[in-house]
Amino acid sequence: METHFQKELQQLKEDLLKMAALVEEAINMAVQSLVKTDSDLAKKTFEGEDKINDMELAIDDSCLKLLALRHPMAADLRFITSAMKIITDLERMGDQAVNIAERAISLNQEPQLKPYIDIPKMAEITQSMVKDVLDAFVNQDPKLARSVCERDDLVDGLNDQVFRELLTFMMSDPQTVTRAVHLMIVCRCLERIADHATNLAEDVIFMLDARVIKHHADVKKEGEGNIS
Amino acid sequence: METHFQKELQQLKEDLLKMAALVEEAINMAVQSLVKTDSDLAKKTFEGEDKINDMELAIDDSCLKLLALRHPMAADLRFITSAMKIITDLERMGDQAVNIAERAISLNQEPQLKPYIDIPKMAEITQSMVKDVLDAFVNQDPKLARSVCERDDLVDGLNDQVFRELLTFMMSDPQTVTRAVHLMIVCRCLERIADHATNLAEDVIFMLDARVIKHHADVKKEGEGNIS
Repeated sequence: METHFQKELQQLKEDLLKMAALVEEAINMAVQSLVKTDSDLAKKTFEGEDKINDMELAIDDSCLKLLALRHPMAADLRFITSAMKIITDLERMGDQAVNIAERAISLNQEPQLKPYIDIPKMAEITQSMVKDVLDAFVNQDPKLARSVCERDDLVDGLNDQVFRELLTFMMSDPQTVTRAVHLMIVCRCLERIADHATNLAEDVIFMLDARVIKHHADVKKEGEGNIS
Repeated sequence: METHFQKELQQLKEDLLKMAALVEEAINMAVQSLVKTDSDLAKKTFEGEDKINDMELAIDDSCLKLLALRHPMAADLRFITSAMKIITDLERMGDQAVNIAERAISLNQEPQLKPYIDIPKMAEITQSMVKDVLDAFVNQDPKLARSVCERDDLVDGLNDQVFRELLTFMMSDPQTVTRAVHLMIVCRCLERIADHATNLAEDVIFMLDARVIKHHADVKKEGEGNIS
């Protein structure tokens, strides 16, 4: 029979997945508001952020209660303290989605600089990273966590590509500078979300394998080889 | 008389300050290696990172032991779980210092693009933010934490300024693009360290005041208004 503590842990897992789903949704709304020139969608991102912030506080509180009342040991203790770190990252990812939405509102007021192809691609990969790293944590799946780390290179690659393209626009026509800078910030926000997901994935791998993957050179370091 | 638990908490505080000091030193070495064209100093940053990583693992372990063996309650419990989040941020700041050192090594092989004035200024402010946010946490000082949040605007302002300057170089002379991009990355790393410190400061304020400052608009959001 499931104990009360096991039920509480199960609830914690469900809450974590729910919070990650809200972050994914926020990223999607923010980027779609740009792609579809729909500033109302951008405003919905702000409401989504409120929900994410509320969930962070609620989960943090639940974890403190579990620590104070259940005195978990070994793997359960590690799981709960890791959950507390993860929600901090999820909340910061939500902040980045809001930053994207703010840029989308500005960009939507001006003619589109170029067709948005790589940015939705970056967003799609980034969302999959957020989803999968939480699944990897909850289901204790180091292989899935590793695939999240690998996807960070794809995001960095797309980011470099967009950055170079935008630089060309800026150099050939100063009229495009403001829009190009807004778009660079959008890409940087996506890249930071991907960085957060990668950091979490490294923590999951470390937790599961007790291998200090994050401190070795086999995973590309955060921020290497790209700029915006 | 001081209990054994109080001594352990005191040790934790000292370790946190020591880890922060290592991060400050890493930032300083990385930026000075650029300013003084001294690539040996850059290599010392890599050694410093090893120490930072070791401290993260050791402190995390101590915190888990405190939770498992001492069953702390209320403020002590919150302090220990916050410490576990803080060391994650400190470790990521160390990664950024390494990124700066790597760029410095590349930049030191070419003629200096421009005198480095704003970058050391950014580094100085960023180091003070790292130091002060840990002092604010350990000494439970919300006022000091607030001053850290305020300094983030200074770093963002300098970052914007350097970015615009470098953009001008790139536009007027394509020969400068590679060096300018390296310098933009250096600035972005410093700005990210400042972001980490600001996030921590918001957490400290929240912990001390139980006021959700981080979720309201009175603190400038991470990444707003700047690019690199």
